Amino acid sequence: MKLYLYFLLNCCFSDSMRMHKNILVLGAGRSASVLISYLLKQAEQYAWKITVADVALQQAQAQVSNHPCGEALLFSIHDATNAPGVIAQADVVISLLPAHLHPLVASLCLTAGKPLLTASYVSDEMKLFDTEARQKNILLLNECGLDPGIDHMSAMQVMDRIRQAGGELTSFESFTGGLIAPETDPLNPWRYKFTWNPRNVVMAGQGTAKFIQDNHFKYVPYQQLFLRTTPVHVPGFGDYEGYANRDSLKYQRTYQLENIQTLVRGTLRNKGFCSAWNVLVQLGCCDDSYKMENVNTMTHAGFVQSFLSGLHPAVEEICQRFQVLPDGEEIKRLVWSGLFSEEPVGLDAGTPAQVLEHILNKRWRLSPGDKDFIVMWHRFKYLQKGKVKQVEAYLTATGSNEVQTAMAQTVGLPLGIAAKLLVQGKLKATGVVIPVTPEFYEPILAELATFGIALKETEA
Amino acid sequence: MKLYLYFLLNCCFSDSMRMHKNILVLGAGRSASVLISYLLKQAEQYAWKITVADVALQQAQAQVSNHPCGEALLFSIHDATNAPGVIAQADVVISLLPAHLHPLVASLCLTAGKPLLTASYVSDEMKLFDTEARQKNILLLNECGLDPGIDHMSAMQVMDRIRQAGGELTSFESFTGGLIAPETDPLNPWRYKFTWNPRNVVMAGQGTAKFIQDNHFKYVPYQQLFLRTTPVHVPGFGDYEGYANRDSLKYQRTYQLENIQTLVRGTLRNKGFCSAWNVLVQLGCCDDSYKMENVNTMTHAGFVQSFLSGLHPAVEEICQRFQVLPDGEEIKRLVWSGLFSEEPVGLDAGTPAQVLEHILNKRWRLSPGDKDFIVMWHRFKYLQKGKVKQVEAYLTATGSNEVQTAMAQTVGLPLGIAAKLLVQGKLKATGVVIPVTPEFYEPILAELATFGIALKETEA
Repeated sequence: MKLYLYFLLNCCFSDSMRMHKNILVLGAGRSASVLISYLLKQAEQYAWKITVADVALQQAQAQVSNHPCGEALLFSIHDATNAPGVIAQADVVISLLPAHLHPLVASLCLTAGKPLLTASYVSDEMKLFDTEARQKNILLLNECGLDPGIDHMSAMQVMDRIRQAGGELTSFESFTGGLIAPETDPLNPWRYKFTWNPRNVVMAGQGTAKFIQDNHFKYVPYQQLFLRTTPVHVPGFGDYEGYANRDSLKYQRTYQLENIQTLVRGTLRNKGFCSAWNVLVQLGCCDDSYKMENVNTMTHAGFVQSFLSGLHPAVEEICQRFQVLPDGEEIKRLVWSGLFSEEPVGLDAGTPAQVLEHILNKRWRLSPGDKDFIVMWHRFKYLQKGKVKQVEAYLTATGSNEVQTAMAQTVGLPLGIAAKLLVQGKLKATGVVIPVTPEFYEPILAELATFGIALKETEA
Repeated sequence: MKLYLYFLLNCCFSDSMRMHKNILVLGAGRSASVLISYLLKQAEQYAWKITVADVALQQAQAQVSNHPCGEALLFSIHDATNAPGVIAQADVVISLLPAHLHPLVASLCLTAGKPLLTASYVSDEMKLFDTEARQKNILLLNECGLDPGIDHMSAMQVMDRIRQAGGELTSFESFTGGLIAPETDPLNPWRYKFTWNPRNVVMAGQGTAKFIQDNHFKYVPYQQLFLRTTPVHVPGFGDYEGYANRDSLKYQRTYQLENIQTLVRGTLRNKGFCSAWNVLVQLGCCDDSYKMENVNTMTHAGFVQSFLSGLHPAVEEICQRFQVLPDGEEIKRLVWSGLFSEEPVGLDAGTPAQVLEHILNKRWRLSPGDKDFIVMWHRFKYLQKGKVKQVEAYLTATGSNEVQTAMAQTVGLPLGIAAKLLVQGKLKATGVVIPVTPEFYEPILAELATFGIALKETEA
């Protein structure tokens, strides 16, 4: 044991041993826990060094937890003096930073000639790096988490199999949600808590959802999104509702579904969530475009009143305006969230979205012992030898606790496995890509299955 | 007469006579007609030169119509070689260009040391020129049209009078609308046509309306705006409905209404307009944030179908979704606008907002003989010696025809009068300002009254 530790310490930290690979993780928030644990464990086996870098050194140190293969670094991507050097010393960079920072990370990676892995959507800015990355033979892998991530990989695995068997895909629907386990917070009528970036939850759906349905391009604006849900039944787990995500159209080419009649990607919630959330959307509570007045003296009820005429009591006006019942499920959820309470908001300033996030976070923060719950569901329809066929594939995952969440696991492990494959020279792709080819999905899904993360299928 | 013409020709065009003032009008669209006529008429009296500059020379020529004091110029504000010289030769610049170009115009005016007049809202970019304009003693006058413009001037005149008489204002509501005259297009159920920039009509209300009501800050998001209308009765003209405009809060300081309990500015429409328009808003038809697919083969009905599930016939789905009746006023208006017809849209590409504008323009363009109709209405409440008092003030104006519109008149004349005052040295203000001080409103309102444009008042 002593010898083993000595070897580890040596291999990870000795400057003379730079042949050992250094994997750099940018961002050490709670959601990084599973990824960092996984990487540290692999590092023991392969004698790598795992560098965990964060603007809060303490946070990075907590994640590394004195592991002999780990190093915690104080790091800001905006520090033009320090950041390029840190990236230059890495063999692979994994960024868990907010998505809008990824183009900056990518440009530093390209300068240093280092590959980058993220779990975020490919932005237009990120796309611009494709040519340079190809020229330099560098991989900028994005959308390699849960959703986007495992959804792409599991769907492409099924679709490639269908196509290889001569099937012609006519419809692909895919919904994923990060919820809470049935035994967690049983009185919470939303059946929901923040298990990932709360801001993204509050802002979800802004813009216009675009998809294909029965051969028609369809556009659902934000103001209709939570009213136009799709019922989704997951065998053995129950009934959910899904709303369409962003731009499904761009995946038509990615998934090679040129003749598809229906193509939609979306988010799953427990039944009743969307019609209650819709009230907040309609009121304007999720608006992030302006700062409200007098937030410092505002109560929860005062926040809601800002969006009402005030001619009637708040609940009465909401019921009239949005055709919900005073004793119905929507009002029950809003009341439970404290939206009509005279409790002070407790912020000095903010946009409606920031105030709402702050209010919701009082009830929607994971408590000790809380377990989150992931549901992913795909439905494929296809023609085979003239017959209409259908496959449903689904995955569920339950978190271990409020830190080792199913979300941290299903976002972190694909990134960690991709990093391992890359360090081992098993990924040949270059440029700005997402994991929709067998090179990615075969080994990543196979290793995920060893963690119990695997889709089940039912065929009709 | 010959001598007079000789004088005119001389004074307007001789380079040796540069002591004669040159007023430069940027933009010669139809809406410029009254302004240019007014300026040419003044030019005869004061021996000025009126330069009308447009990207379409023919359009500028048509407006000048060979008037001896007028000159038509081919001009683009983006032409960095030519534009500065044209502006340098002017004594006053009036810009009727699209509002987003005004900061560019303002920067050229500041460089050349020339004052600028516009009828557009002061943008954040425009505000940034304030310090430089003050330092250089240059006036950048904005919001000097109808709304914003005459509304500011007429309201401030009343409010200053109330304050001078010891009254304390508690409430100010102001609504203005550009409609059509009762005898115009009598079968048009919207009682509306495009009398100003059609794009602005389609985009109206996007963002969040902010105002003060009964001592509370209120925020109405786009998705609620056309559902939360205020009934407005104009004595002798009937009942209208108003929806709140943009940011009324910023006028609290401008109008010196620090202790006001209610402050709202808005847009007037004929009754029934807003609930029909709301259907288009809810569907997402006014979205300008993305290009639609297959616009080149799209019909009007296909456009609407893009925003529906398609599970039911369009009218049926709209009725269900938005709680309107198949034989109700909303559907009547949508049908009249041809929104369910199989007529091709006739565009190659476009955003939803662009497609909708194109469809509506087929029915909402002013026809020969059409007359537009302006309604402006203010209500002031105040305390005087402990008594609650109220004044309503209103203005109506009817266009002469489809070119000499009431809109062109009420937007053009305040600009033209302001230009005259400026050339005559009667305006002392500098910096980025709007016409809310007596220096502006007294002479401009007085001269507008000679054209029959004046508010009437009723007191309660």
